[in-house]
Amino acid sequence: MTGILNSGDNRMVLLSGRAHLQLAEDVARELGTDLVPTDAYDFANGETYVRFGESVRGADAFLIQSHPAPINQWIMEQLLMLDALKRASARSITVVAPFYPYARQDKKHRGREPISARLISDLYKTAGADRLMSVDLHTAQIQGFFDGPVDHLMAIPILADYVKSMVGDDEITVVSPDTGRVRVAEMWAELLGHTPLAFVHKTRDITRPNQAESKEVVGQIEGRTCVLIDDMIDTAGTISGAVKVLREHGAKDVIIAATHAVFSDPAVERLSNCGARSVVVTDTLPVPEEHRFENLEVLSIAPLLARAIQEVFEDGSVTSLFNGHS
Amino acid sequence: MTGILNSGDNRMVLLSGRAHLQLAEDVARELGTDLVPTDAYDFANGETYVRFGESVRGADAFLIQSHPAPINQWIMEQLLMLDALKRASARSITVVAPFYPYARQDKKHRGREPISARLISDLYKTAGADRLMSVDLHTAQIQGFFDGPVDHLMAIPILADYVKSMVGDDEITVVSPDTGRVRVAEMWAELLGHTPLAFVHKTRDITRPNQAESKEVVGQIEGRTCVLIDDMIDTAGTISGAVKVLREHGAKDVIIAATHAVFSDPAVERLSNCGARSVVVTDTLPVPEEHRFENLEVLSIAPLLARAIQEVFEDGSVTSLFNGHS
Amino acid sequence: MTGILNSGDNRMVLLSGRAHLQLAEDVARELGTDLVPTDAYDFANGETYVRFGESVRGADAFLIQSHPAPINQWIMEQLLMLDALKRASARSITVVAPFYPYARQDKKHRGREPISARLISDLYKTAGADRLMSVDLHTAQIQGFFDGPVDHLMAIPILADYVKSMVGDDEITVVSPDTGRVRVAEMWAELLGHTPLAFVHKTRDITRPNQAESKEVVGQIEGRTCVLIDDMIDTAGTISGAVKVLREHGAKDVIIAATHAVFSDPAVERLSNCGARSVVVTDTLPVPEEHRFENLEVLSIAPLLARAIQEVFEDGSVTSLFNGHS
Amino acid sequence: MTGILNSGDNRMVLLSGRAHLQLAEDVARELGTDLVPTDAYDFANGETYVRFGESVRGADAFLIQSHPAPINQWIMEQLLMLDALKRASARSITVVAPFYPYARQDKKHRGREPISARLISDLYKTAGADRLMSVDLHTAQIQGFFDGPVDHLMAIPILADYVKSMVGDDEITVVSPDTGRVRVAEMWAELLGHTPLAFVHKTRDITRPNQAESKEVVGQIEGRTCVLIDDMIDTAGTISGAVKVLREHGAKDVIIAATHAVFSDPAVERLSNCGARSVVVTDTLPVPEEHRFENLEVLSIAPLLARAIQEVFEDGSVTSLFNGHS
Amino acid sequence: MTGILNSGDNRMVLLSGRAHLQLAEDVARELGTDLVPTDAYDFANGETYVRFGESVRGADAFLIQSHPAPINQWIMEQLLMLDALKRASARSITVVAPFYPYARQDKKHRGREPISARLISDLYKTAGADRLMSVDLHTAQIQGFFDGPVDHLMAIPILADYVKSMVGDDEITVVSPDTGRVRVAEMWAELLGHTPLAFVHKTRDITRPNQAESKEVVGQIEGRTCVLIDDMIDTAGTISGAVKVLREHGAKDVIIAATHAVFSDPAVERLSNCGARSVVVTDTLPVPEEHRFENLEVLSIAPLLARAIQEVFEDGSVTSLFNGHS
Amino acid sequence: MTGILNSGDNRMVLLSGRAHLQLAEDVARELGTDLVPTDAYDFANGETYVRFGESVRGADAFLIQSHPAPINQWIMEQLLMLDALKRASARSITVVAPFYPYARQDKKHRGREPISARLISDLYKTAGADRLMSVDLHTAQIQGFFDGPVDHLMAIPILADYVKSMVGDDEITVVSPDTGRVRVAEMWAELLGHTPLAFVHKTRDITRPNQAESKEVVGQIEGRTCVLIDDMIDTAGTISGAVKVLREHGAKDVIIAATHAVFSDPAVERLSNCGARSVVVTDTLPVPEEHRFENLEVLSIAPLLARAIQEVFEDGSVTSLFNGHS
Repeated sequence: MTGILNSGDNRMVLLSGRAHLQLAEDVARELGTDLVPTDAYDFANGETYVRFGESVRGADAFLIQSHPAPINQWIMEQLLMLDALKRASARSITVVAPFYPYARQDKKHRGREPISARLISDLYKTAGADRLMSVDLHTAQIQGFFDGPVDHLMAIPILADYVKSMVGDDEITVVSPDTGRVRVAEMWAELLGHTPLAFVHKTRDITRPNQAESKEVVGQIEGRTCVLIDDMIDTAGTISGAVKVLREHGAKDVIIAATHAVFSDPAVERLSNCGARSVVVTDTLPVPEEHRFENLEVLSIAPLLARAIQEVFEDGSVTSLFNGHS
Repeated sequence: MTGILNSGDNRMVLLSGRAHLQLAEDVARELGTDLVPTDAYDFANGETYVRFGESVRGADAFLIQSHPAPINQWIMEQLLMLDALKRASARSITVVAPFYPYARQDKKHRGREPISARLISDLYKTAGADRLMSVDLHTAQIQGFFDGPVDHLMAIPILADYVKSMVGDDEITVVSPDTGRVRVAEMWAELLGHTPLAFVHKTRDITRPNQAESKEVVGQIEGRTCVLIDDMIDTAGTISGAVKVLREHGAKDVIIAATHAVFSDPAVERLSNCGARSVVVTDTLPVPEEHRFENLEVLSIAPLLARAIQEVFEDGSVTSLFNGHS
Repeated sequence: MTGILNSGDNRMVLLSGRAHLQLAEDVARELGTDLVPTDAYDFANGETYVRFGESVRGADAFLIQSHPAPINQWIMEQLLMLDALKRASARSITVVAPFYPYARQDKKHRGREPISARLISDLYKTAGADRLMSVDLHTAQIQGFFDGPVDHLMAIPILADYVKSMVGDDEITVVSPDTGRVRVAEMWAELLGHTPLAFVHKTRDITRPNQAESKEVVGQIEGRTCVLIDDMIDTAGTISGAVKVLREHGAKDVIIAATHAVFSDPAVERLSNCGARSVVVTDTLPVPEEHRFENLEVLSIAPLLARAIQEVFEDGSVTSLFNGHS
Repeated sequence: MTGILNSGDNRMVLLSGRAHLQLAEDVARELGTDLVPTDAYDFANGETYVRFGESVRGADAFLIQSHPAPINQWIMEQLLMLDALKRASARSITVVAPFYPYARQDKKHRGREPISARLISDLYKTAGADRLMSVDLHTAQIQGFFDGPVDHLMAIPILADYVKSMVGDDEITVVSPDTGRVRVAEMWAELLGHTPLAFVHKTRDITRPNQAESKEVVGQIEGRTCVLIDDMIDTAGTISGAVKVLREHGAKDVIIAATHAVFSDPAVERLSNCGARSVVVTDTLPVPEEHRFENLEVLSIAPLLARAIQEVFEDGSVTSLFNGHS
Repeated sequence: MTGILNSGDNRMVLLSGRAHLQLAEDVARELGTDLVPTDAYDFANGETYVRFGESVRGADAFLIQSHPAPINQWIMEQLLMLDALKRASARSITVVAPFYPYARQDKKHRGREPISARLISDLYKTAGADRLMSVDLHTAQIQGFFDGPVDHLMAIPILADYVKSMVGDDEITVVSPDTGRVRVAEMWAELLGHTPLAFVHKTRDITRPNQAESKEVVGQIEGRTCVLIDDMIDTAGTISGAVKVLREHGAKDVIIAATHAVFSDPAVERLSNCGARSVVVTDTLPVPEEHRFENLEVLSIAPLLARAIQEVFEDGSVTSLFNGHS
Repeated sequence: MTGILNSGDNRMVLLSGRAHLQLAEDVARELGTDLVPTDAYDFANGETYVRFGESVRGADAFLIQSHPAPINQWIMEQLLMLDALKRASARSITVVAPFYPYARQDKKHRGREPISARLISDLYKTAGADRLMSVDLHTAQIQGFFDGPVDHLMAIPILADYVKSMVGDDEITVVSPDTGRVRVAEMWAELLGHTPLAFVHKTRDITRPNQAESKEVVGQIEGRTCVLIDDMIDTAGTISGAVKVLREHGAKDVIIAATHAVFSDPAVERLSNCGARSVVVTDTLPVPEEHRFENLEVLSIAPLLARAIQEVFEDGSVTSLFNGHS
């Protein structure tokens, strides 16, 4: 047949935005490679410039960006990098967003709101993403917002293993800080050995979710070690209020565990003063030195991301990483 | 300017598939009009034929189809009707699906599953739908699956009003039959006057959701009238098991309330024998005579659908129907 | 250059819906492999659940589904499997639909009908199909309904070879059962050695194609062996009526040949009583034991499908299978 | 409510490319309006420039272009006009293509060919068309190539009425010039009073369709007036050969009737010398003076187009124009 | 015909992001209406919340947002508002972006860069925009980046009228500050009465466009009043350097005129000290009090935007606003 | 794992339309391969037929077509070939269009025009193109019109090298023939050793760009060798007028250099008589014998195209071909 043959290898490249470079470097080290050198800076009027320092033509690109504040800035940088990858002829592009942005606006709470979490998926797709990888989505339905494969990784087993090693033989109750996380609390309870469940019941002004008021506890917690769980800690108002209520209702001890350490002000102050024995999170978001306090434990998410990326690149099974949980 | 002018009126038309014709006729009567006459039948090999008996050119079409078993049959009929509407030059097409099909498969529970609820939205869009109207979605995130406006109507206030009139001065606890509906139970509790909350905690084989085992109750129910709520009742295994547990734990009385009466076998038997004082549902799905039993109350959803369709057609506000709840 | 290299093999996987498992297994055996193990069942309300038992990440997937009654059920199952393949990161997805569903609704016969055959192509595409493979399409224009490569395989040469071996030195006329298949009859005539042509001329109520009335024969058939051809046999009304007319006009013998054995009631009765010497079909659709009768010959389509799949996977030429006929 | 109201009229505008301006002007006159003044010319290197002389903002635009040779030139001009209409904010755009271009390449006759007729539909859509109107498509399946409403108008009744008035009490047989048009001949036979049918059987080199060889006649024609029908006459090789064969087989008279007068060389010479009593066509394509010959009758298609455009603009029924034939 | 008629008015609504509310209010006042009341604020982690206070169902929405720093913030807010408008069933959505963001990254200056200006158009489209309105695009080709109608308004005539009134009978030369704006300078020269042209020739490090070095003047400027023009003034490095060079080469006087006052630091210092007689800009971007200096003249763009919006809403002609310049 | 493995080589194929076969053959020879044999011809009514003589399944296809007059003919042929490649299952398809068609209509010069250059990109995409390769685009922004990777190759360095070798130690000024090319002239000036710049200032009737009138020269040219540059030479009216003006203003000598030799009548006459010392172009467009004249130098573009194609196929870097200029 007419034409020219070659037997091309597949090439995988890792790239990162500026939001959480440490995490991307940790992932690269786990995989035994380096990040593609990248120029990224902002012009005087705030426009962002990006350029990759090496050819990515034909490569399977994994673009890592986390989403701390200023979150809109990091989303736009990521979209620009996606466009640059697409126009530079990457063969496939996977967005690695360990903390999915705008995950809480996953529906219209009231009329005439956006569904921001769906919009984010559409923007990724438009800019060039073929696939999405994320960790502990606020609601699992967000998987369905993206028109393509989504690798939904789970940090809860990692957090649960750590908590288990910490509580020893204590009698545990897993507690959801509100009515919306009871299902997740149940998953935790299974991982910690089919413990009892409880939840805190509060009233919440729907338009200002950061200002909530804890009220009462449903479930058995008296004299028990409570593992108070959530997917993310933002201003820590809800969760620190829950600690207070739990202690008032006779909890022996409270351990807070959450995947995403958003830690907006005054989260650090609240958490360090709320009376919890320990706060366990991962580094899906950067936790800078000034946000670290005594009793805070930050587990590394890089090994999980690295293994998942490897499975994707080598056409293995991400499902197998979780024994059927993803 | 060159050309021809006319001052066209807007025309709204109602159409219906064969799955639940009674509901469509009720809606038409509420609106003071008739359904567009439609031919629909199946050929010998199961292929479905549809044809509208009147021009729909330029009209705002509302296509009502509910989704009882055989559900795949009714979905395909609906898709064929959408294609016919699109090719017949309807100006806009709204799918009215009071019970959103495949709503429970709204995420990948395990790897290598479809996200069927998202697929349904994509199929509607491809076949020609511009807008979607549904009632009490299994999860509100399904709104974000459709690429266009979604009018998410709420039947819970209608059910709650009815339940309120029934319970009088009883001391009520709202109960979720599992850990995944506690947030919805909380919404019910607000509508019934900030009542206490409880939930039943069970283990569930994730691949066979119809076979679950009730276990224990979390929350105060002793001596109280329990309002056991859910979005749908399919085989009624979970919910009838919950009634049993509640009674064993001292509940005075149990009222079951759910929006969607799927009523697959042996739901009717289970419900009529489970010991609940009353079962309240709506007719988003057809409830044939042989599925009606003593203590079953079926509330009409047609007035709600009719009002919403009218608001959409007249560019009013669907949000206003719910005082900010949609 | 930065990054990680591997030299990945290509992997082809075969999957099948439940409509005609035997055919898929035959194809797999021809190719020397197995079907990917698959869970597929229906919930109580008719919703279909599917899940693949092995990773298909990076694979070239061929999804075989045939379309007997209940045809809408099998289409929906197929769409769900496509969605699952897409979200499980298959590299490419080929729909293998030996009998293209809704092929007869390939145009608007009258205003306000759907063009169902085009809709089917769009649904396949939306759900994730990249390519389509089918056998003896009702009209070849259906190739143009799918936005992507279509491999249109031809079973007519297989059928013609068999008929040739059966008729020996008989004087043959190829007969079209209506005016719409004369062009295809001409193709048969070429394969059987440039025989004469004839057709049966009937009146047909366009809205009820299964109820037709044979009328007269145009062409020379007296004293000759008639090969009465069609692409599919549904209720067999038209074709058995044609046999009757041919015999009344002096045909010596009639052999019926068709690719797709739809065999809706009362096809089996009509065919076994119509006086034809033999009925030759393929197994693009399942022909269960109770549909088999004396004089029925079912040829296997599996070898043709297997060769075509192999050519596609190995970037060979499907065209070459037909010496320029596809 | 906030905002500004107006009660806008709908405005319909007619525009035309340069391929067959006479037809567009005839349609405009039928409708009682004028064409939007338009600049269109070619630059020295063949690039085409178009610009409309009036605002079309918010208008329902009908863009008429026919497709004689050089056909590629007129397609490109039409696509440029569509782009200009889209960017000039027309509210809706209907392509009026009385002779659908590339209709004969409606499938892959052999591997590695385009499906040009589908491509044309996709190009129209991409350039901005919302709807398509055409006359007597080569195959009705082309309706399914366009992703949107298609108004398929029928000129056959107009031609048949004229032929009827011409033949008086003659005994008629409708003849298809090849095996592919027998179904259409049957439709003619119904319109002319359920006359007998015949067809000419020829061999055709598939790659060079203009060079065919007539062979034999199937059906009764001796002593009868043959109405030899086709959808289009291109070089007239097939049709003039068919006239010769019919006369050799004893036809009393032959009348040729076809919708589209492509009339490529040497069609005019062949038709005027072939011995047909009359040739009846429409002006879906321009028939310049030098292509007019004795016995040629050109019927105007403008009234049909005008009525259909009016129905579309006024949201009436195009179906009603054909009593159920479209 | 079946159905319900109404004769709906068209409704136009104006909405605005937070970036330059003053401009939106000025436009509303020109049009005699108010902005739709809108909630917009940022959560603690930087996520933006938006909600409209009134129904926009069926309305023609014009969403005004300008793009000062922090520009990524305002783009994301705008995208969220577009999504909210789309999901709230606005009939049409026009983005009014007086200063098109990322306009300078309108091509790949080097390999592996994004084409950010195209990406912006794609993001608008994805989020829901049907049409785009902007003023004095950095390059007119950006019109072609958006897949839909673009109304490209021109502020240059407004600026030129003001400059004309200022210069009296001076002998004028229009000067481009670099080689890329000579074509625009020519347009200015025509508006000011076919004056001579000149340009400043500099070397520019392509990766850091803010750091350029003026070099020499090509064209006659000695003893003349130079009108130094540009589309935008960012840090003012180029333009203030150009003033210096012009004065060194004997210019009598220099007037700076530009449409978009980006005014990043240290623009204000540079402009007020560069020796120009006057700096004339428009308020397409906000010019806060602290950026105002002696000799700065800010012309209002609101009347132009208001007239264009009105023409669009009333299906008039935007082209007519510019006598054929748009 | 279930399935079949193979280790497929990658295959690159070159194909060409009929517009400039010589160029495609030159590229093939540079690459050491042959063009895929292709049938292409026009039917009597101007419809174009194409078919490839070999399987291209799974191949990376590069389709070369240049765009001389009749340009619409060659665009349509190219679109048909793209459709054929797509439907024949090419793995990727790159359009190689050395002279981008309709590049001058890259914006709306006035209202109600198309943006033809954007339309061309959309047509390529719709017909099946994944990637675009072109040479010296009229404006670099056209890169942003295509939704995918664009390899923008530069012939200016090749032309500049040749001019350099020709001018020896002459004192050079680079001259733009109008105000729109001064930026490109600056790029030339850098390549020729930071020479001075000048431009010719003319008035142009915007609707008839071929009829312009040279006016005056801005910049130092007296006694110098002028290198008069442009991207393309169409009718040569502007450029030959510029030569005249330059000589009148004392230029010692004029060399004309342009990438694309459109050479519409009367370009050859004008160029050979205008007094330029030499005219240097490339063969991105065919330059037939009758267009060759003394002093015309045609440089081959094939080596540049071949190297770029090779880099694309082997996942190398096209950027590296230009030391950062693409």
